Amino acid sequence: MLTVVKIGGNVIDSPEALDAFLDDFSRLPSPKVLVHGGGKIATTFAARLGIESQMIEGRRVTSPEMRDVAVMVYAGLLNKRIVAALQARGCNAIGLSGADGFAVRAHRRAPVPVDYGEVGDVDGVNAATLGALLDGGFVPVFCAISCDAEGNLLNTNADTIAMEVAKAGATLYPTRLLYCFEKRGVLRDVEDEDSVIDVIDNGSFAALKSAGVISKGMLPKVMNALTAVNECGVSEVVIKSSSELLADTGTKIRK
Amino acid sequence: MLTVVKIGGNVIDSPEALDAFLDDFSRLPSPKVLVHGGGKIATTFAARLGIESQMIEGRRVTSPEMRDVAVMVYAGLLNKRIVAALQARGCNAIGLSGADGFAVRAHRRAPVPVDYGEVGDVDGVNAATLGALLDGGFVPVFCAISCDAEGNLLNTNADTIAMEVAKAGATLYPTRLLYCFEKRGVLRDVEDEDSVIDVIDNGSFAALKSAGVISKGMLPKVMNALTAVNECGVSEVVIKSSSELLADTGTKIRK
Repeated sequence: MLTVVKIGGNVIDSPEALDAFLDDFSRLPSPKVLVHGGGKIATTFAARLGIESQMIEGRRVTSPEMRDVAVMVYAGLLNKRIVAALQARGCNAIGLSGADGFAVRAHRRAPVPVDYGEVGDVDGVNAATLGALLDGGFVPVFCAISCDAEGNLLNTNADTIAMEVAKAGATLYPTRLLYCFEKRGVLRDVEDEDSVIDVIDNGSFAALKSAGVISKGMLPKVMNALTAVNECGVSEVVIKSSSELLADTGTKIRK
Repeated sequence: MLTVVKIGGNVIDSPEALDAFLDDFSRLPSPKVLVHGGGKIATTFAARLGIESQMIEGRRVTSPEMRDVAVMVYAGLLNKRIVAALQARGCNAIGLSGADGFAVRAHRRAPVPVDYGEVGDVDGVNAATLGALLDGGFVPVFCAISCDAEGNLLNTNADTIAMEVAKAGATLYPTRLLYCFEKRGVLRDVEDEDSVIDVIDNGSFAALKSAGVISKGMLPKVMNALTAVNECGVSEVVIKSSSELLADTGTKIRK
Protein backbone atom coordinates (compact mmCIF):
# COMPACT_ATOMS: atom_id res chain seq x y z
CA MET A 1 0.00 0.00 0.00
CA LEU A 2 1.42 3.39 -1.10
CA THR A 3 0.60 6.30 1.22
CA VAL A 4 0.56 9.81 -0.24
CA VAL A 5 0.46 12.54 2.43
CA LYS A 6 -0.35 16.18 1.72
CA ILE A 7 0.46 18.98 4.17
CA GLY A 8 -0.26 22.68 3.89
CA GLY A 9 0.43 26.04 5.47
CA ASN A 10 -0.64 25.13 9.02
CA VAL A 11 2.34 22.74 9.21
CA ILE A 12 4.77 24.60 6.93
CA ASP A 13 4.47 27.90 8.82
CA SER A 14 5.08 26.42 12.29
CA PRO A 15 8.55 24.96 13.02
CA GLU A 16 7.15 23.03 16.02
CA ALA A 17 4.23 21.57 14.04
CA LEU A 18 6.57 20.66 11.17
CA ASP A 19 9.04 18.90 13.50
CA ALA A 20 6.26 16.87 15.13
CA PHE A 21 4.74 16.02 11.74
CA LEU A 22 8.10 14.88 10.31
CA ASP A 23 8.66 12.67 13.39
CA ASP A 24 5.36 10.96 12.56
CA PHE A 25 5.91 10.88 8.79
CA SER A 26 9.31 9.23 9.19
CA ARG A 27 7.61 6.41 11.18
CA LEU A 28 4.97 5.77 8.51
CA PRO A 29 5.66 2.52 6.61
CA SER A 30 7.09 2.81 3.08
CA PRO A 31 6.35 3.17 0.20
CA LYS A 32 5.24 6.72 0.91
CA VAL A 33 5.26 10.17 -0.67
CA LEU A 34 4.98 13.65 0.83
CA VAL A 35 3.44 16.63 -0.99
CA HIS A 36 3.85 20.02 0.64
CA GLY A 37 2.26 23.39 0.01
CA GLY A 38 4.01 26.71 0.36
CA GLY A 39 2.74 28.54 3.42
CA LYS A 40 3.38 32.23 3.91
CA ILE A 41 7.16 32.39 3.50
CA ALA A 42 7.12 33.09 -0.27
CA THR A 43 4.89 36.12 0.32
CA THR A 44 7.30 37.32 3.01
CA PHE A 45 10.32 36.97 0.72
CA ALA A 46 8.51 38.64 -2.18
CA ALA A 47 7.72 41.60 0.08
CA ARG A 48 11.37 41.81 1.21
CA LEU A 49 12.42 41.79 -2.45
CA GLY A 50 9.91 44.52 -3.25
CA ILE A 51 7.84 42.29 -5.52
CA GLU A 52 4.17 43.15 -5.22
CA SER A 53 1.38 40.64 -5.66
CA GLN A 54 -0.56 41.48 -8.81
CA MET A 55 -4.33 41.23 -8.64
CA ILE A 56 -6.47 41.23 -11.79
CA GLU A 57 -10.26 41.13 -11.42
CA GLY A 58 -9.82 40.02 -7.82
CA ARG A 59 -7.56 37.10 -8.76
CA ARG A 60 -3.93 36.71 -7.81
CA VAL A 61 -1.60 36.70 -10.82
CA THR A 62 1.82 35.02 -10.78
CA SER A 63 4.35 37.30 -12.48
CA PRO A 64 7.65 35.81 -13.70
CA GLU A 65 9.40 37.41 -10.72
CA MET A 66 6.86 35.95 -8.29
CA ARG A 67 7.24 32.54 -9.95
CA ASP A 68 10.99 32.73 -9.40
CA VAL A 69 10.39 33.47 -5.71
CA ALA A 70 8.00 30.50 -5.55
CA VAL A 71 10.64 28.25 -7.14
CA MET A 72 13.31 29.51 -4.72
CA VAL A 73 11.15 29.12 -1.63
CA TYR A 74 9.09 26.01 -2.45
CA ALA A 75 11.60 23.93 -4.48
CA GLY A 76 14.61 25.41 -2.69
CA LEU A 77 14.32 26.46 0.93
CA LEU A 78 11.20 24.57 2.08
CA ASN A 79 11.71 21.39 0.06
CA LYS A 80 15.37 21.02 1.05
CA ARG A 81 14.69 21.83 4.70
CA ILE A 82 12.03 19.10 4.78
CA VAL A 83 14.22 16.60 2.92
CA ALA A 84 17.22 17.30 5.19
CA ALA A 85 15.05 16.98 8.32
CA LEU A 86 13.69 13.63 7.06
CA GLN A 87 17.21 12.36 6.28
CA ALA A 88 18.24 13.29 9.85
CA ARG A 89 15.35 11.04 10.95
CA GLY A 90 16.60 8.12 8.84
CA CYS A 91 13.99 8.57 6.10
CA ASN A 92 15.57 8.45 2.61
CA ALA A 93 13.76 11.49 1.20
CA ILE A 94 14.40 12.97 -2.24
CA GLY A 95 12.93 16.34 -3.18
CA LEU A 96 11.14 16.95 -6.46
CA SER A 97 9.81 19.86 -8.41
CA GLY A 98 7.75 19.09 -11.49
CA ALA A 99 10.92 19.40 -13.59
CA ASP A 100 12.88 16.69 -11.76
CA GLY A 101 12.39 13.47 -13.70
CA PHE A 102 9.65 15.52 -15.42
CA ALA A 103 7.62 14.43 -12.40
CA VAL A 104 4.70 16.86 -12.82
CA ARG A 105 3.83 17.71 -16.41
CA ALA A 106 1.67 20.78 -16.87
CA HIS A 107 0.66 23.44 -19.34
CA ARG A 108 0.36 27.13 -18.72
CA ARG A 109 -3.23 28.02 -17.89
CA ALA A 110 -5.02 29.57 -20.89
CA PRO A 111 -4.76 33.40 -20.76
CA VAL A 112 -8.52 33.92 -21.28
CA PRO A 113 -10.72 35.06 -19.64
CA VAL A 114 -8.04 35.92 -17.04
CA ASP A 115 -4.29 35.61 -17.56
CA TYR A 116 -3.04 34.14 -14.30
CA GLY A 117 0.54 34.32 -15.51
CA GLU A 118 3.06 31.62 -14.61
CA VAL A 119 0.47 29.13 -13.36
CA GLY A 120 0.35 25.51 -14.46
CA ASP A 121 -2.63 23.20 -14.88
CA VAL A 122 -1.41 19.66 -14.33
CA ASP A 123 -1.53 17.16 -17.20
CA GLY A 124 -0.30 14.34 -15.00
CA VAL A 125 2.32 12.95 -12.66
CA ASN A 126 4.99 10.80 -14.30
CA ALA A 127 4.36 7.26 -13.04
CA ALA A 128 7.68 6.05 -14.49
CA THR A 129 9.62 8.59 -12.42
CA LEU A 130 7.54 7.89 -9.32
CA GLY A 131 7.96 4.12 -9.75
CA ALA A 132 11.70 4.31 -10.37
CA LEU A 133 12.24 6.41 -7.23
CA LEU A 134 10.05 4.18 -5.03
CA ASP A 135 11.81 1.09 -6.45
CA GLY A 136 15.13 2.76 -5.63
CA GLY A 137 14.12 3.00 -1.96
CA PHE A 138 13.51 6.75 -1.98
CA VAL A 139 10.70 8.72 -0.35
CA PRO A 140 9.71 11.39 -2.90
CA VAL A 141 8.89 14.83 -1.48
CA PHE A 142 6.98 17.00 -3.97
CA CYS A 143 6.68 20.76 -3.84
CA ALA A 144 3.95 22.62 -5.70
CA ILE A 145 5.94 23.59 -8.81
CA SER A 146 5.11 21.96 -12.15
CA CYS A 147 6.87 22.14 -15.53
CA ASP A 148 5.71 22.37 -19.12
CA ALA A 149 7.22 20.69 -22.19
CA GLU A 150 9.20 23.85 -23.05
CA GLY A 151 10.97 23.81 -19.69
CA ASN A 152 8.93 26.57 -18.03
CA LEU A 153 8.49 26.18 -14.27
CA LEU A 154 4.92 26.95 -13.20
CA ASN A 155 3.24 27.71 -9.89
CA THR A 156 0.65 25.03 -9.12
CA ASN A 157 -1.94 24.15 -6.50
CA ALA A 158 -0.52 21.65 -3.98
CA ASP A 159 -3.88 19.87 -3.49
CA THR A 160 -4.02 19.18 -7.23
CA ILE A 161 -0.46 17.82 -7.23
CA ALA A 162 -1.28 15.53 -4.28
CA MET A 163 -4.31 14.19 -6.10
CA GLU A 164 -2.32 13.60 -9.30
CA VAL A 165 0.49 11.88 -7.34
CA ALA A 166 -2.11 9.54 -5.81
CA LYS A 167 -3.61 8.91 -9.27
CA ALA A 168 -0.20 8.01 -10.73
CA GLY A 169 0.64 5.99 -7.61
CA ALA A 170 -2.55 3.99 -8.06
CA THR A 171 -1.23 2.66 -11.38
CA LEU A 172 1.68 1.13 -9.40
CA TYR A 173 0.31 0.21 -5.93
CA PRO A 174 -2.95 0.16 -4.01
CA THR A 175 -2.86 3.81 -2.93
CA ARG A 176 -4.36 5.93 -0.17
CA LEU A 177 -4.17 9.70 0.10
CA LEU A 178 -3.97 11.33 3.54
CA TYR A 179 -5.06 14.89 3.15
CA CYS A 180 -3.82 16.70 6.28
CA PHE A 181 -5.08 20.10 7.37
CA GLU A 182 -5.84 22.07 10.53
CA LYS A 183 -9.09 20.32 11.49
CA ARG A 184 -9.68 16.75 12.66
CA GLY A 185 -11.73 15.82 9.57
CA VAL A 186 -14.99 16.76 7.91
CA LEU A 187 -17.09 18.04 10.82
CA ARG A 188 -20.88 17.76 11.20
CA ASP A 189 -20.65 20.94 13.27
CA VAL A 190 -17.76 23.27 12.34
CA GLU A 191 -17.67 24.51 15.93
CA ASP A 192 -17.20 20.99 17.34
CA GLU A 193 -13.90 19.21 16.66
CA ASP A 194 -15.43 16.02 18.10
CA SER A 195 -18.11 15.89 15.40
CA VAL A 196 -15.90 14.22 12.78
CA ILE A 197 -17.82 12.24 10.15
CA ASP A 198 -16.14 8.80 10.03
CA VAL A 199 -16.94 7.83 6.45
CA ILE A 200 -18.31 9.61 3.40
CA ASP A 201 -19.18 7.61 0.30
CA ASN A 202 -21.14 8.33 -2.86
CA GLY A 203 -24.34 7.33 -1.11
CA SER A 204 -23.97 9.59 1.91
CA PHE A 205 -22.38 12.54 0.09
CA ALA A 206 -25.55 13.71 -1.65
CA ALA A 207 -27.49 13.74 1.61
CA LEU A 208 -24.72 15.58 3.52
CA LYS A 209 -24.47 18.13 0.73
CA SER A 210 -28.20 18.82 0.44
CA ALA A 211 -28.48 19.09 4.23
CA GLY A 212 -25.76 21.79 4.08
CA VAL A 213 -23.39 19.78 6.31
CA ILE A 214 -20.69 19.84 3.61
CA SER A 215 -20.40 23.36 2.24
CA LYS A 216 -18.02 26.20 1.44
CA GLY A 217 -14.34 25.21 1.53
CA MET A 218 -15.03 21.57 2.37
CA LEU A 219 -17.19 20.98 -0.69
CA PRO A 220 -14.38 21.03 -3.32
CA LYS A 221 -12.12 18.98 -1.00
CA VAL A 222 -14.70 16.22 -0.60
CA MET A 223 -15.70 16.33 -4.29
CA ASN A 224 -12.03 16.01 -5.34
CA ALA A 225 -11.62 13.12 -2.91
CA LEU A 226 -14.68 11.37 -4.39
CA THR A 227 -13.28 11.89 -7.89
CA ALA A 228 -10.01 10.30 -6.72
CA VAL A 229 -11.75 7.14 -5.46
CA ASN A 230 -14.37 6.96 -8.23
CA GLU A 231 -12.29 7.80 -11.28
CA CYS A 232 -8.58 7.68 -10.42
CA GLY A 233 -8.17 4.26 -8.83
CA VAL A 234 -7.30 5.64 -5.39
CA SER A 235 -8.46 3.19 -2.68
CA GLU A 236 -9.24 5.75 -0.02
CA VAL A 237 -8.79 9.43 0.79
CA VAL A 238 -8.60 10.41 4.46
CA ILE A 239 -9.17 14.05 5.39
CA LYS A 240 -7.53 14.52 8.79
CA SER A 241 -5.44 16.59 11.17
CA SER A 242 -1.72 16.89 10.45
CA SER A 243 -1.11 16.35 14.20
CA GLU A 244 -2.78 12.92 14.06
CA LEU A 245 -0.98 11.37 11.11
CA LEU A 246 -0.41 7.94 12.66
CA ALA A 247 -3.76 7.70 14.44
CA ASP A 248 -6.81 6.05 12.84
CA THR A 249 -8.72 9.32 12.83
CA GLY A 250 -10.26 11.66 10.29
CA THR A 251 -12.91 11.30 7.61
CA LYS A 252 -12.50 8.38 5.20
CA ILE A 253 -13.76 9.03 1.69
CA ARG A 254 -14.62 5.80 -0.13
CA LYS A 255 -16.57 4.76 -3.20
CA MET B 1 31.87 5.09 -19.02
CA LEU B 2 30.30 7.62 -16.63
CA THR B 3 30.94 11.27 -17.47
CA VAL B 4 30.82 13.85 -14.67
CA VAL B 5 30.75 17.44 -15.95
CA LYS B 6 31.37 20.48 -13.76
CA ILE B 7 30.38 24.01 -14.81
CA GLY B 8 30.91 27.28 -12.99
CA GLY B 9 30.02 30.95 -13.02
CA ASN B 10 31.10 31.68 -16.59
CA VAL B 11 28.25 29.44 -17.81
CA ILE B 12 25.74 30.02 -14.97
CA ASP B 13 25.85 33.83 -15.29
CA SER B 14 25.29 33.93 -19.08
CA PRO B 15 21.88 32.73 -20.38
CA GLU B 16 23.35 32.32 -23.91
CA ALA B 17 26.37 30.32 -22.71
CA LEU B 18 24.12 28.16 -20.51
CA ASP B 19 21.71 27.44 -23.40
CA ALA B 20 24.56 26.43 -25.68
CA PHE B 21 26.17 24.31 -22.97
CA LEU B 22 22.89 22.49 -22.19
CA ASP B 23 22.42 21.75 -25.92
CA ASP B 24 25.82 20.04 -25.85
CA PHE B 25 25.32 18.35 -22.48
CA SER B 26 21.99 16.82 -23.58
CA ARG B 27 23.82 15.23 -26.55
CA LEU B 28 26.52 13.65 -24.38
CA PRO B 29 26.03 9.86 -24.03
CA SER B 30 24.62 8.56 -20.72
CA PRO B 31 25.38 7.71 -17.96
CA LYS B 32 26.28 11.28 -17.08
CA VAL B 33 26.10 13.74 -14.19
CA LEU B 34 26.18 17.54 -14.08
CA VAL B 35 27.58 19.55 -11.15
CA HIS B 36 26.97 23.29 -11.21
CA GLY B 37 28.39 26.16 -9.20
CA GLY B 38 26.47 29.21 -8.12
CA GLY B 39 27.60 32.22 -10.11
CA LYS B 40 26.77 35.73 -9.00
CA ILE B 41 22.99 35.52 -8.60
CA ALA B 42 23.02 34.55 -4.89
CA THR B 43 25.08 37.65 -4.11
CA THR B 44 22.60 39.75 -6.07
CA PHE B 45 19.62 38.31 -4.18
CA ALA B 46 21.39 38.70 -0.83
CA ALA B 47 21.99 42.37 -1.62
CA ARG B 48 18.33 42.86 -2.60
CA LEU B 49 17.32 41.23 0.71
CA GLY B 50 19.70 43.52 2.61
CA ILE B 51 21.90 40.62 3.74
CA GLU B 52 25.52 41.70 3.88
CA SER B 53 28.45 39.40 3.26
CA GLN B 54 30.38 38.93 6.48
CA MET B 55 34.16 38.98 6.28
CA ILE B 56 36.33 37.78 9.18
CA GLU B 57 40.12 38.05 8.86
CA GLY B 58 39.72 38.49 5.13
CA ARG B 59 37.62 35.36 4.72
CA ARG B 60 33.98 35.23 3.63
CA VAL B 61 31.70 33.82 6.32
CA THR B 62 28.36 32.15 5.53
CA SER B 63 25.73 33.35 8.00
CA PRO B 64 22.51 31.31 8.43
CA GLU B 65 20.65 33.94 6.39
CA MET B 66 23.24 33.76 3.60
CA ARG B 67 23.06 29.95 3.66
CA ASP B 68 19.28 30.16 3.19
CA VAL B 69 19.81 32.43 0.17
CA ALA B 70 22.34 29.93 -1.22
CA VAL B 71 19.84 27.09 -0.75
CA MET B 72 17.09 29.11 -2.44
CA VAL B 73 19.23 30.18 -5.38
CA TYR B 74 21.46 27.12 -5.94
CA ALA B 75 19.08 24.26 -5.00
CA GLY B 76 15.97 26.19 -6.03
CA LEU B 77 16.19 28.69 -8.86
CA LEU B 78 19.38 27.62 -10.67
CA ASN B 79 19.07 23.87 -10.19
CA LYS B 80 15.41 23.76 -11.28
CA ARG B 81 16.01 26.07 -14.26
CA ILE B 82 18.81 23.77 -15.44
CA VAL B 83 16.77 20.61 -14.83
CA ALA B 84 13.72 22.05 -16.63
CA ALA B 85 15.86 23.18 -19.58
CA LEU B 86 17.40 19.70 -19.83
CA GLN B 87 13.97 18.02 -19.70
CA ALA B 88 12.85 20.31 -22.56
CA ARG B 89 15.85 18.90 -24.48
CA GLY B 90 14.78 15.29 -23.82
CA CYS B 91 17.39 14.70 -21.09
CA ASN B 92 15.85 13.04 -18.01
CA ALA B 93 17.52 15.28 -15.43
CA ILE B 94 16.84 15.13 -11.69
CA GLY B 95 18.15 17.87 -9.39
CA LEU B 96 19.93 17.12 -6.15
CA SER B 97 21.14 19.00 -3.13
CA GLY B 98 23.26 17.11 -0.65
CA ALA B 99 20.12 16.34 1.36
CA ASP B 100 18.28 14.55 -1.47
CA GLY B 101 18.95 10.84 -1.05
CA PHE B 102 21.62 12.12 1.40
CA ALA B 103 23.66 12.52 -1.80
CA VAL B 104 26.44 14.70 -0.36
CA ARG B 105 27.31 14.00 3.29
CA ALA B 106 29.31 16.69 5.02
CA HIS B 107 30.20 18.10 8.40
CA ARG B 108 30.31 21.72 9.41
CA ARG B 109 33.84 23.06 9.07
CA ALA B 110 35.60 23.28 12.45
CA PRO B 111 35.15 26.79 13.93
CA VAL B 112 38.87 27.21 14.68
CA PRO B 113 41.00 29.05 13.71
CA VAL B 114 38.26 30.80 11.68
CA ASP B 115 34.51 30.11 11.99
CA TYR B 116 33.30 30.10 8.38
CA GLY B 117 29.72 29.57 9.52
CA GLU B 118 27.33 27.38 7.54
CA VAL B 119 30.03 25.79 5.39
CA GLY B 120 30.35 22.06 4.85
CA ASP B 121 33.44 19.94 4.29
CA VAL B 122 32.43 16.90 2.27
CA ASP B 123 32.70 13.44 3.82
CA GLY B 124 31.60 11.74 0.62
CA VAL B 125 29.04 11.35 -2.13
CA ASN B 126 26.49 8.58 -1.58
CA ALA B 127 27.29 5.92 -4.21
CA ALA B 128 24.05 4.04 -3.43
CA THR B 129 21.97 7.12 -4.26
CA LEU B 130 24.05 7.90 -7.34
CA GLY B 131 23.83 4.29 -8.56
CA ALA B 132 20.07 4.00 -7.94
CA LEU B 133 19.40 7.19 -9.91
CA LEU B 134 21.69 6.24 -12.81
CA ASP B 135 20.10 2.74 -12.88
CA GLY B 136 16.69 4.43 -12.94
CA GLY B 137 17.65 6.25 -16.15
CA PHE B 138 18.06 9.66 -14.53
CA VAL B 139 20.75 12.28 -15.15
CA PRO B 140 21.63 13.66 -11.70
CA VAL B 141 22.24 17.44 -11.53
CA PHE B 142 24.06 18.44 -8.34
CA CYS B 143 24.16 21.91 -6.86
CA ALA B 144 26.81 22.94 -4.34
CA ILE B 145 24.81 22.42 -1.14
CA SER B 146 25.76 19.56 1.20
CA CYS B 147 24.04 18.21 4.31
CA ASP B 148 25.22 16.97 7.68
CA ALA B 149 23.84 14.07 9.73
CA GLU B 150 21.72 16.45 11.83
CA GLY B 151 19.91 17.75 8.75
CA ASN B 152 21.77 21.04 8.44
CA LEU B 153 22.20 22.31 4.88
CA LEU B 154 25.70 23.66 4.27
CA ASN B 155 27.30 25.83 1.61
CA THR B 156 30.03 23.87 -0.20
CA ASN B 157 32.62 24.30 -2.92
CA ALA B 158 31.31 23.03 -6.28
CA ASP B 159 34.76 21.80 -7.44
CA THR B 160 34.96 19.60 -4.35
CA ILE B 161 31.49 18.18 -4.95
CA ALA B 162 32.38 17.39 -8.58
CA MET B 163 35.52 15.57 -7.45
CA GLU B 164 33.59 13.59 -4.84
CA VAL B 165 30.86 12.70 -7.37
CA ALA B 166 33.56 11.37 -9.71
CA LYS B 167 35.12 9.43 -6.83
CA ALA B 168 31.77 7.82 -5.92
CA GLY B 169 31.01 7.25 -9.61
CA ALA B 170 34.32 5.43 -10.02
CA THR B 171 33.09 2.75 -7.59
CA LEU B 172 30.24 2.05 -10.06
CA TYR B 173 31.62 2.75 -13.57
CA PRO B 174 34.86 3.70 -15.28
CA THR B 175 34.56 7.45 -14.74
CA ARG B 176 35.92 10.60 -16.30
CA LEU B 177 35.53 14.13 -14.99
CA LEU B 178 35.20 17.05 -17.42
CA TYR B 179 36.13 20.17 -15.54
CA CYS B 180 34.76 23.05 -17.63
CA PHE B 181 35.83 26.66 -17.19
CA GLU B 182 36.46 29.82 -19.21
CA LYS B 183 39.79 28.81 -20.77
CA ARG B 184 40.55 26.10 -23.34
CA GLY B 185 42.68 24.07 -20.91
CA VAL B 186 45.91 24.38 -18.98
CA LEU B 187 47.92 26.88 -21.04
CA ARG B 188 51.71 26.97 -21.48
CA ASP B 189 51.32 30.70 -22.00
CA VAL B 190 48.33 32.27 -20.20
CA GLU B 191 48.14 34.91 -22.93
CA ASP B 192 47.82 32.30 -25.70
CA GLU B 193 44.60 30.24 -25.88
CA ASP B 194 46.29 28.02 -28.52
CA SER B 195 49.00 26.91 -26.10
CA VAL B 196 46.89 24.18 -24.46
CA ILE B 197 48.94 21.39 -22.89
CA ASP B 198 47.44 18.14 -24.23
CA VAL B 199 48.32 15.79 -21.39
CA ILE B 200 49.65 16.18 -17.86
CA ASP B 201 50.66 13.11 -15.87
CA ASN B 202 52.60 12.53 -12.67
CA GLY B 203 55.83 12.53 -14.66
CA SER B 204 55.33 15.82 -16.47
CA PHE B 205 53.60 17.65 -13.58
CA ALA B 206 56.73 18.13 -11.46
CA ALA B 207 58.63 19.64 -14.38
CA LEU B 208 55.75 21.96 -15.37
CA LYS B 209 55.39 23.08 -11.78
CA SER B 210 59.07 23.77 -11.18
CA ALA B 211 59.30 25.63 -14.50
CA GLY B 212 56.46 27.88 -13.25
CA VAL B 213 54.16 26.89 -16.16
CA ILE B 214 51.50 25.67 -13.71
CA SER B 215 51.06 28.26 -10.99
CA LYS B 216 48.56 30.37 -9.09
CA GLY B 217 44.90 29.33 -9.62
CA MET B 218 45.76 26.42 -11.93
CA LEU B 219 47.98 24.70 -9.36
CA PRO B 220 45.20 23.48 -6.99
CA LYS B 221 43.02 22.51 -9.98
CA VAL B 222 45.74 20.30 -11.48
CA MET B 223 46.76 18.91 -8.09
CA ASN B 224 43.13 17.97 -7.31
CA ALA B 225 42.85 16.34 -10.73
CA LEU B 226 46.01 14.32 -10.09
CA THR B 227 44.63 13.23 -6.71
CA ALA B 228 41.42 12.10 -8.49
CA VAL B 229 43.30 9.87 -10.94
CA ASN B 230 45.97 8.69 -8.48
CA GLU B 231 43.89 8.04 -5.36
CA CYS B 232 40.18 8.10 -6.23
CA GLY B 233 39.94 5.63 -9.13
CA VAL B 234 38.94 8.30 -11.68
CA SER B 235 40.19 7.28 -15.16
CA GLU B 236 40.80 10.77 -16.49
CA VAL B 237 40.17 14.42 -15.67
CA VAL B 238 39.87 16.85 -18.58
CA ILE B 239 40.25 20.57 -17.89
CA LYS B 240 38.56 22.33 -20.78
CA SER B 241 36.32 25.11 -22.09
CA SER B 242 32.59 24.88 -21.35
CA SER B 243 31.97 25.93 -24.98
CA GLU B 244 33.83 22.86 -26.30
CA LEU B 245 32.14 20.12 -24.28
CA LEU B 246 31.72 17.64 -27.16
CA ALA B 247 35.08 18.33 -28.83
CA ASP B 248 38.22 16.34 -28.04
CA THR B 249 39.95 19.39 -26.63
CA GLY B 250 41.42 20.52 -23.33
CA THR B 251 44.10 19.21 -21.03
CA LYS B 252 43.88 15.53 -20.07
CA ILE B 253 45.15 14.70 -16.59
CA ARG B 254 46.17 11.05 -16.31
CA LYS B 255 48.21 8.91 -13.94
